[in-house]
Amino acid sequence: MAVRTIDVRERVMARNDELAARVRERLLQAGVTALNLVSSPGSGKTSLLERTLAALDRELGIAVITGDVRTQNDADRLERHTTRLVHAVVTGGACHLDAMQITAALDAIDLEATRLLFIENVGNLVCPASWDLGEVAKVVVFSVTEGEDKPLKYPKMFQMSRYAVLNKIDLLPHLDFDVDAAIANARAVNPDLEFFLTSARTGEGLDRWLDFVREAAAPVGR
Amino acid sequence: MAVRTIDVRERVMARNDELAARVRERLLQAGVTALNLVSSPGSGKTSLLERTLAALDRELGIAVITGDVRTQNDADRLERHTTRLVHAVVTGGACHLDAMQITAALDAIDLEATRLLFIENVGNLVCPASWDLGEVAKVVVFSVTEGEDKPLKYPKMFQMSRYAVLNKIDLLPHLDFDVDAAIANARAVNPDLEFFLTSARTGEGLDRWLDFVREAAAPVGR
Repeated sequence: MAVRTIDVRERVMARNDELAARVRERLLQAGVTALNLVSSPGSGKTSLLERTLAALDRELGIAVITGDVRTQNDADRLERHTTRLVHAVVTGGACHLDAMQITAALDAIDLEATRLLFIENVGNLVCPASWDLGEVAKVVVFSVTEGEDKPLKYPKMFQMSRYAVLNKIDLLPHLDFDVDAAIANARAVNPDLEFFLTSARTGEGLDRWLDFVREAAAPVGR
Repeated sequence: MAVRTIDVRERVMARNDELAARVRERLLQAGVTALNLVSSPGSGKTSLLERTLAALDRELGIAVITGDVRTQNDADRLERHTTRLVHAVVTGGACHLDAMQITAALDAIDLEATRLLFIENVGNLVCPASWDLGEVAKVVVFSVTEGEDKPLKYPKMFQMSRYAVLNKIDLLPHLDFDVDAAIANARAVNPDLEFFLTSARTGEGLDRWLDFVREAAAPVGR
């Protein structure tokens, strides 16, 4: 029976990869860059997006898809910072978004008016690592309150990500957190990770992040 | 195909519940109380257990089973605080422990010398909620850095838990975190939740937690 479960799981994953490839092609054709934000709960993904929308929404065309297990709290928070619709996907208990959900959400997004798509995944350091959503890159967000060992304990998420945001750096004076050790741990599992150190609360370090977002949104496909 | 996936999943869950019932009976017969600690990554489960073992290991017979996706870092940390073996289960990528793994781990534990079993689950606020491990109660640990909304966003975990530990309260002066709102959110999804406010770092609030642990370990089954 274990074998049969794995068999079904593999078919589900293969189907997801197929759909994700189509999403990727569709976004490339439309000249839209998609970033898939992954993290554990409470790392500050939504706060980072609030700041990003507040700073860049008028300058760039940004669309957002949020994934939540039961609520659409994140979408509600984000809608205050943009004139565009934030697409909330409720996964109904599932610990990740999938490419089928992104496909459906894209139908409701004006891709012509969009240069950048943020996908805010379910807060979970395990499941979303395995699900390709057609993004250009995964961005793993983790906070200085979570401990330096997280990249070693959840290596797949850090291996699958191209960028890492270390958030809540305003709390560093009050913690025994070794930033260099955390970065070294992350680079031990993925030497190519590019890091951003931010505080979505105070704004510290956000300039570099916003520059990166601007650059990511630069037209390439059309 | 979606239907078939659900069918297989239901059979896997039913098998898990069956094994969990056997674990529960076995522990009851042996007079061992099992607490299943669940949380998101970095909430401080391991630090709380380090403190608990340091304070009570000689007084009570405490056994520990840790669940980690890839490493046995948590078990290594805990072993410094106990003379007993800490049983590390590496889930190989799975986002939760299951009752089969607990059954196997119990074979290696001297239940005669044990009054209390801590199961430290994989850091994940979604998956472990659905998996009965034969515990007397789940204890959900969350930290003040994660935001007041977590009980609303991950309601199942708070519904399935009997106790809640709100950890890292030493950081409250540096955060915009409303403790009353967090507790109210948690009680909105589960009115019976009993709360402990702790700082595993400074020791604040630990006395009440340790009293609870002592009481939980009181012999009842034999």
